[in-house]
Amino acid sequence: MVNQVQQVDGSWQSCRGDSSGASNSSAESSKESSRCSTPLPDADRSDRLREKMRKRMDSGDRWFSLEFFPPRTASGAVNLISRFDRMGSGGPLYIDITWHPAGDPGSDKETSSMMIASTAVNYCGLESILHLTCCNQTKEKITGYLAKAKHLGLKNIMALRGDPVGDDWEDEEGGFNFAVDLVKHIRSEFDEYFDICVAGYPTGHPEAESYEQDLRHLKEKVDAGADFVITQLFFRADTFLKFLDDCRAAGITCPILPGIFPIQGYQSLRQLVKMSKLEVPEEITKIIEPIKDNDAAIRNYGIHQAVDMCRVLLDSGKVPGLHFYTLNREVATMEVLRQLGLWVEDPRRPLPWAVSANPKRKVEDVRPIFWASRPKSYIYRTQDWDEFPNGRWGNSSSPAFGELNDYYLFYLKSKSSKEALLQMWGEELKNEQSVFEVFTCYITAQPNRNGQKVLCLPWNDEPLAPETNFLKDELEKVNRRGVLTINSQPNINGKPSADPVVGWGPPGGYVFQKAYLEFFTSSENVTALLKVLKKYEPRVNYHIVDVHGHNMTNAHEMQPNAVTWGIFPGREIVQPTVVDPVSFMYWKDEAFALWIEQWAKLYEDESPSRMIIKYIHDNYFLVNLVDNDFPLESCLWRVIDDMFELLDATPEPLNDEAASQ
Amino acid sequence: MVNQVQQVDGSWQSCRGDSSGASNSSAESSKESSRCSTPLPDADRSDRLREKMRKRMDSGDRWFSLEFFPPRTASGAVNLISRFDRMGSGGPLYIDITWHPAGDPGSDKETSSMMIASTAVNYCGLESILHLTCCNQTKEKITGYLAKAKHLGLKNIMALRGDPVGDDWEDEEGGFNFAVDLVKHIRSEFDEYFDICVAGYPTGHPEAESYEQDLRHLKEKVDAGADFVITQLFFRADTFLKFLDDCRAAGITCPILPGIFPIQGYQSLRQLVKMSKLEVPEEITKIIEPIKDNDAAIRNYGIHQAVDMCRVLLDSGKVPGLHFYTLNREVATMEVLRQLGLWVEDPRRPLPWAVSANPKRKVEDVRPIFWASRPKSYIYRTQDWDEFPNGRWGNSSSPAFGELNDYYLFYLKSKSSKEALLQMWGEELKNEQSVFEVFTCYITAQPNRNGQKVLCLPWNDEPLAPETNFLKDELEKVNRRGVLTINSQPNINGKPSADPVVGWGPPGGYVFQKAYLEFFTSSENVTALLKVLKKYEPRVNYHIVDVHGHNMTNAHEMQPNAVTWGIFPGREIVQPTVVDPVSFMYWKDEAFALWIEQWAKLYEDESPSRMIIKYIHDNYFLVNLVDNDFPLESCLWRVIDDMFELLDATPEPLNDEAASQ
Repeated sequence: MVNQVQQVDGSWQSCRGDSSGASNSSAESSKESSRCSTPLPDADRSDRLREKMRKRMDSGDRWFSLEFFPPRTASGAVNLISRFDRMGSGGPLYIDITWHPAGDPGSDKETSSMMIASTAVNYCGLESILHLTCCNQTKEKITGYLAKAKHLGLKNIMALRGDPVGDDWEDEEGGFNFAVDLVKHIRSEFDEYFDICVAGYPTGHPEAESYEQDLRHLKEKVDAGADFVITQLFFRADTFLKFLDDCRAAGITCPILPGIFPIQGYQSLRQLVKMSKLEVPEEITKIIEPIKDNDAAIRNYGIHQAVDMCRVLLDSGKVPGLHFYTLNREVATMEVLRQLGLWVEDPRRPLPWAVSANPKRKVEDVRPIFWASRPKSYIYRTQDWDEFPNGRWGNSSSPAFGELNDYYLFYLKSKSSKEALLQMWGEELKNEQSVFEVFTCYITAQPNRNGQKVLCLPWNDEPLAPETNFLKDELEKVNRRGVLTINSQPNINGKPSADPVVGWGPPGGYVFQKAYLEFFTSSENVTALLKVLKKYEPRVNYHIVDVHGHNMTNAHEMQPNAVTWGIFPGREIVQPTVVDPVSFMYWKDEAFALWIEQWAKLYEDESPSRMIIKYIHDNYFLVNLVDNDFPLESCLWRVIDDMFELLDATPEPLNDEAASQ
Repeated sequence: MVNQVQQVDGSWQSCRGDSSGASNSSAESSKESSRCSTPLPDADRSDRLREKMRKRMDSGDRWFSLEFFPPRTASGAVNLISRFDRMGSGGPLYIDITWHPAGDPGSDKETSSMMIASTAVNYCGLESILHLTCCNQTKEKITGYLAKAKHLGLKNIMALRGDPVGDDWEDEEGGFNFAVDLVKHIRSEFDEYFDICVAGYPTGHPEAESYEQDLRHLKEKVDAGADFVITQLFFRADTFLKFLDDCRAAGITCPILPGIFPIQGYQSLRQLVKMSKLEVPEEITKIIEPIKDNDAAIRNYGIHQAVDMCRVLLDSGKVPGLHFYTLNREVATMEVLRQLGLWVEDPRRPLPWAVSANPKRKVEDVRPIFWASRPKSYIYRTQDWDEFPNGRWGNSSSPAFGELNDYYLFYLKSKSSKEALLQMWGEELKNEQSVFEVFTCYITAQPNRNGQKVLCLPWNDEPLAPETNFLKDELEKVNRRGVLTINSQPNINGKPSADPVVGWGPPGGYVFQKAYLEFFTSSENVTALLKVLKKYEPRVNYHIVDVHGHNMTNAHEMQPNAVTWGIFPGREIVQPTVVDPVSFMYWKDEAFALWIEQWAKLYEDESPSRMIIKYIHDNYFLVNLVDNDFPLESCLWRVIDDMFELLDATPEPLNDEAASQ
C-alpha cells in the first residue's frame, strides 16, 4: 500500500526540488555531556572526590559546585537532566542533590533524590553528592538507602540531621539524633567507601545553644569521619571568613566550602531565609525592598552582590571552592561564575563520548559507535555489566545487552511534547518521501512545510553536532533521495587532541577517525548498493541488516573495527569507538524499534501515517559503512553516488534481491 | 683508572677525526626471522598445519617445506639456527627435524632433535614437524617424548617406525612394530592435539612384501589418524604420479607430498641411496658418473634435474606442495625453489617483531621495544608465561621475567668466535674512546683500526637493519662522542603497511612509529642531558637508569608508551611495541650484564681492557628517549646536540650530579 502511495506521488526526482524534509544525527552530538567535571584523563577519572579536592588545593586551581533539588514531576526530571548536561559543561567539581523526606527520596521514582543523583552520576557523568537526613529514621532504613546509593554508583553523601517531623520528637537513645550519628553510622557500616560531607553554619545552627557549641558539634562531625564541610548560605563574606578562622582555631582542618546564594527573586529570598532562620542584613534589604516587584532588577542585584562577595572570599586565599545554591535555575549562577572566571567550557574531553561517573565504569574506554547519539541508552543497557571492554573491545567479550523495553525511561524521553514532535515530523505523512523530507530538514536546519524546524529525530534528541557540519551538503543530498542517515563521522587524519571540534584526550596528542555513515534505506537501494560495494573491497566495510536480522557483511563476524583512536604522550593507544559486529545486532533492534515507538505511535492505529512508518520499519535496511582509508578523502559519498547512478541507469527497478536473499 | 686513560688519550674532539670505532643496533634487526612461514595475520597464525594445507589447496597456492637433521655440535646448532632464519625468509609452510635414536634425540642437549625443533618453533617462528621413531621403544618413553614436545609448543609429529637396532629384533605383542602403532598411540594418548604426518614409499618400502602391501600399510596409517603423507625421495616424476594415483585408488584421500632430493654431490647421493635402498635410474648415473669429481657440475645437474622433475609434478595439478630433503644445505634447494618461483621473500610481516610459532604465544601481539634486537632472549625469558599481554600491555599485567643466567644458551650465542669478536671489538682497549670507536664502526660499517668490519655488538648479533639506515649519519655522530646507541627507530607518520622497509601487518593498513633512541652514556653526559630534557617536556619521555637501578624518569611509573602501532581495514588498533617502564628494569639488568658477559670476559682478569669495560658497566647510564610528537621531525637528535652544546659550553666538567642523586 505504501508502495502505491509512493508511485502515485512520483519519482525520486520529483521530490528532490521541493523537499523540505530532513535528518541526520552525528557521532558526536552528545559532546555536551562529556564536557563534564572530569575533563582530564585517567588519574582524575579514578580519584575520589576528596582526592580531587586535595589536588585542586595543591595546584591552587579553584572550583565551584552546584546544588539542585529533586523535581516534582517526570517532565521536570527530563528538564533537570538537560540542565545537568548544560551546567555540567561549565566544569563543576561536583553537584549535590537534596533529600526531601516527604518526597519518597530513596525510591525508584524518576523524581526521587536517589534516582536524580544516580542519573547525574551514571548518565550525565557528574561527580555527585547525595544528601541524606537521618532524623526519624531507623538504622535499617538508613543502611538500606546507603546500600542502594552504593549499588547505583554514588560515592558521596552529605550527612544531615534533617528537620524533625512533628513537635513531639525527642532524642532517642542510640538513634539518629544528630548528623554526627549518621556520619558514625556511615563509617561503621561502609568504612571508607563514601566521601562524607557535613553542613557548617557560619552564624551557628538555629537550634544550637550557642555559636561556640555549634562549632564543637561541627568538630565532632569531622572527627567522626566527615571529609569536608559545606556551609549554610550567608550574606556577608566576613561572616564566612570569621567562621572559617573559628573552625581552624577549633582544630577543624578539612576543606570548608562557602555556600553561595545568588539572590534571584524577592519571594525565593524570603522563603529561603524563613526556612533557614537567617536574617537578611540591612544593607541588602534596603536595596531590594524598593525593587521587590522588578524581578530583573533583583536578579541583577543578586548577581552583583554574589560576585562581590565571592571575590572577597577568593581573594582571601582561604577558599578553595564555592558552592552554589542554584534553586534549580541556571541564569544567575552561570552569570556569577562567568564573571568570576570560574565557568570554563573546556572543549577538552577525556574521550569522544560522554564519560560516566559511576566508579564501576571508570575503566571503560571503548564503546560501539552506534549509540553515539544515544549514550544514555547505551549506559542503561549496559548498567548490569560487571566488566567493560577497556583497551580493545575483544573478540567475544561483549556480554549481553539489557533489554530496552521501556522507551519512556525518563532520561531517554524526548524533551519535546507529542504535539511538538508531530509539528516537526508531520501531522500527516503522505508517503516515504514525507519521511525523507523530515530527515532532510533535520540535516539542513531548514523549516519544514509547516514552517517548523526539525530539532530532533527518534535516533537523536539533539540538533546536529558541529562535527557533522563538515558533512552537511552531502548528508542533505543523500537524505533527499531516501538514504536516511542517523549517524556519521568524517575521517580525521591526526588532528591535535586540543582541536575544539574533534579533539579529545590529554594535551599533546593526536586524534584520528575513519569515515563512518549509518542510514536506513529501501531494499531496492540496498540491491544496488551491494553491487556498488564490490568495487570498494576491501577499502569499505559494511553491515547491512533488516529488522528480522537478515545480515549482509564483508567484515569479520567477531572482529571490531576501530573507527576513532588517539595517540598521546607516554600512553598506550586509546581506541574509544569501534564498529562492533556483535553489538550492532543489539543496536539494530533498538534502531528499528525507534521507528515504531517514537514515531509511528504518534499516529492513530491503522492511519496512513502510521502505516508508512511501519512499512519503512518492516522493509528498509539499516546500513553502516566504514571507509578504512582514513588518510584519503572519504569515499563513502562516492559509494552512495554510484548507487544512485546505478539506480538511475536501470530503467526498471532492480529485482528485490536483497530482501529475498 | 679508566678516567685517567681517557684524559691521557685526549679530548672528545681529538677522537672524532680518526675514530674508526662503531655501533648501534636497531629496533628491526630481527626482521629476517619474522618473515617466516606465517606472513599473514590472525587466522593463519592460529591455524594448525592441516588447516593451513587445506586453505592453500583451496586457494591453489602451492607450498614447499624443508627437512633438516639435527647438528652434531653446539656451534653446528648455532649455524643451523641461522640457516632456519635465512631459509625461513623464503616462506616454507613448515620444516621438519629428523629423529636419530643414537643421538639422544629427546634430550635437553642443544643438539637434540627435540631442542632443535623447539628452537625452530619458539625462536625462529617456523611451523615445524618433529620426527619420532618408535621401534625398540616403550610406550612410556614415547609418551614422555610426546608430552615433552607438547610442553615445548610442538604441534606436529612425523610418525615413523625407524630402523631396528641389531638383527634379533622381532615384532612385539602390543609393542611398536609399525608406524601405524605410533599413529594409534598418539591419537589415543593425545587425541587431536598433534597433526600427524606419515611416510609414503613411491617404490614401496624396502622391507614390504610388495608395493601393494605397502599401499595397504599406508592406508592403515592414514585410517589410524595420520593427516598427510610425505614420500621418500624418488628420481622420476612418473614414479610419484603413479604412486599418487595408486594411493587415491586405494582410498587414501589426504595430502600426499613428494619428497624432493636435489642431487648435491656424488658421495652424498651414493650414501643416501644406500641408506634408502633406492636405485638411481640409469639416465641419471649415465650423466653423473663422468662428472663425479666435479662438485659444481654435479650440483648444477642436480638443480636442473630437480627443477625439471618438480615442474612435471606441479604441472600435473595433483601436487599441492613439495618437500625438500636439504641435507642441511642451502644453496641447491634455494636455487631450485627460485627457479620454480616458489621462493618468495615476502617483505610483509605480521607484526614488526619475529612472531613465535608456539601455540601458547599466538595471542601475543605486544612486546617491549627493548628486546627488539634480542627477540630470542625475550622469548626465552618469557617462556614460562601462561598469559601474554595481548592488545594493550596493561598497567600491571607484566609477570616476572625469567632470569637470564646462562649467556651461552645456544640460541643466544654469538655466531662469531672469540677470536673474531676480539678482532671486531679490539684485542686491546686503551680507553673509553676505544669503545666509542667500536660502536661507530658498527654503525658506519667501516673497518676498524685493524681493518676488520664490526658486524655485531653484544646487544645485536646482526648487522644494522635497513630501517636504521635512515638514521645512520646522526647515529655515527653521537656514537663518536660516547652516546653508545643500542636500539633506535625513526618516527613514521602513516606509511602503507606494505612498505618494504617499515611496513607490517595486513595489506591496506597504515603503520606509525614514535622516534625512539636507547643508549649507554657517561654520568657526566646524563647530568647535562637531564638539564636539556627539561626544555623538551612533555614532548620527550625518558628513562635513565644505572646498573644499580637508580632510575630517573618523567614517565608514568606503570603506564607503557606505545611506540609502534598500525591501523588496518576492519580491525582494532594493533600496538605491537611499547616502552614499558616495568620491563625496562628487567631489560636494564640484561643490557648491563652483556657488557661483562659478552665483552669484558673476552679479556684477561684485571687486564686494562677488561677494566675499561667494567668501568663503563659500573658508571654509565642506560637511557631511553621517546619523542611523542610523531608527525613532526624527530627532536631526539636535537636533544643530544643540545646536550653536547651544554657540555662544550661548560669549561669544567659538570658536577656528577646524576650519579650522586
